[in-house]
Amino acid sequence: MSAVAKLYGIGLGPGDPELITLKAQRLLASAPVTAFFAKQGRLGQARTIATPHLNPETRELRFDYPFTVEIAVTDPRYVRGMETFYDECAGKLAAILDAGDDVAVLCEGDPFFYGSFMYLYDRLHHRYASEVVPGVTGMSACWTRAGAPIAHGDDVLTVLPGTLPEDALLARLNATDAAVIMKVGRNLTKVRRALHQAGLMERAILVEGGSMRTERIRPLAEVTEETAGYFSIVLIPGRQRVR
Amino acid sequence: MSAVAKLYGIGLGPGDPELITLKAQRLLASAPVTAFFAKQGRLGQARTIATPHLNPETRELRFDYPFTVEIAVTDPRYVRGMETFYDECAGKLAAILDAGDDVAVLCEGDPFFYGSFMYLYDRLHHRYASEVVPGVTGMSACWTRAGAPIAHGDDVLTVLPGTLPEDALLARLNATDAAVIMKVGRNLTKVRRALHQAGLMERAILVEGGSMRTERIRPLAEVTEETAGYFSIVLIPGRQRVR
Repeated sequence: MSAVAKLYGIGLGPGDPELITLKAQRLLASAPVTAFFAKQGRLGQARTIATPHLNPETRELRFDYPFTVEIAVTDPRYVRGMETFYDECAGKLAAILDAGDDVAVLCEGDPFFYGSFMYLYDRLHHRYASEVVPGVTGMSACWTRAGAPIAHGDDVLTVLPGTLPEDALLARLNATDAAVIMKVGRNLTKVRRALHQAGLMERAILVEGGSMRTERIRPLAEVTEETAGYFSIVLIPGRQRVR
Repeated sequence: MSAVAKLYGIGLGPGDPELITLKAQRLLASAPVTAFFAKQGRLGQARTIATPHLNPETRELRFDYPFTVEIAVTDPRYVRGMETFYDECAGKLAAILDAGDDVAVLCEGDPFFYGSFMYLYDRLHHRYASEVVPGVTGMSACWTRAGAPIAHGDDVLTVLPGTLPEDALLARLNATDAAVIMKVGRNLTKVRRALHQAGLMERAILVEGGSMRTERIRPLAEVTEETAGYFSIVLIPGRQRVR
């Protein structure tokens, strides 16, 4: 118990267990309570990475996502369902913080870069002391594993969700030097069409399960499937001016 | 001496000495030769971060940039000068690798994200075994320290160099949900004008020296100076759909 309990959001990196930071390791070793998000039926990436570093006495709190891809993110039921879910999670954390215990929320990658932790932080950081530990992002692991330096000098880099409509993807691909397209999975065919139209297929690399045991890296031009795995991104490395 | 020497590019994170990864720490502790870039007269960020972790027996190789901001990056003399410089650095590393010694090149942030190491990698990776260790980027440190979750859900995030012309900055700001503007320093006045025109001044945060001892974080609307420090970025956090 501490006089003023603190909410921690701890970035654990992209999956390779050696890519966690010294700060994350130190804070995991002493956290009295550890919380993590997971898909129903799975332990989840963040909790798996944390295993060897957790305080053996820590109390664990698991937040199961109510749904992941069953409802479209544009559906009002998705937004309402997720808001209720995050409200409930934040309530559970607040109760622990009110009792005087620090809580460490485990986060894949970097907590403030497309992370679920942000929804808890937004609900709690005005009321409680907080500290966030940045981590190596999944996209950094992907371009590193692909041997593909992503952005040089004055390149513009655009991070795009594969869920965007095809014309929006095309417009943004036409206005950038380098790109990372996330959430490619079921959007692979659409992403491929946009890349064709932008004249970028030659430079596109598909990374599935970057830095994980399931990792597979191929030039997108050689991929014949119509969908890709859940943790899939497409990289378009930038152009160099200095060689 | 190893039978096949290996070139390492080691990401050391944004400046906070605790934000290096376990993998970087392990590789630094055994590297027989360590190389790093630095501005003339300074030890440099990467070498400073590495200090407590270096193999005490390591041989050090320092690469002093021939110039930094004295010549515009669009000037042909800049491009030629830098190409010659990188050729020379790569030649020195090749001689060490040919003699059978591994070399670890120290990199601020993430080596493949706007890093000088990429120019050495491009010259050497076809001829030598190589391994790159991704790191926490400077921009991750900045949005973390600013308490500003940068991208949610299906946000588009654009990383822009502040060196772009004002109209190009404006066009890209108009087509994104979230943005990170790098190399703000001398471009602050132009960046501010582009943000005003895009209607984004309210959301803009200036981070100088993010995660370093000189760190200063302010809403850009409150900044009156005409230039910012060398390590300066502007953040435009994304808009959320789920609250």
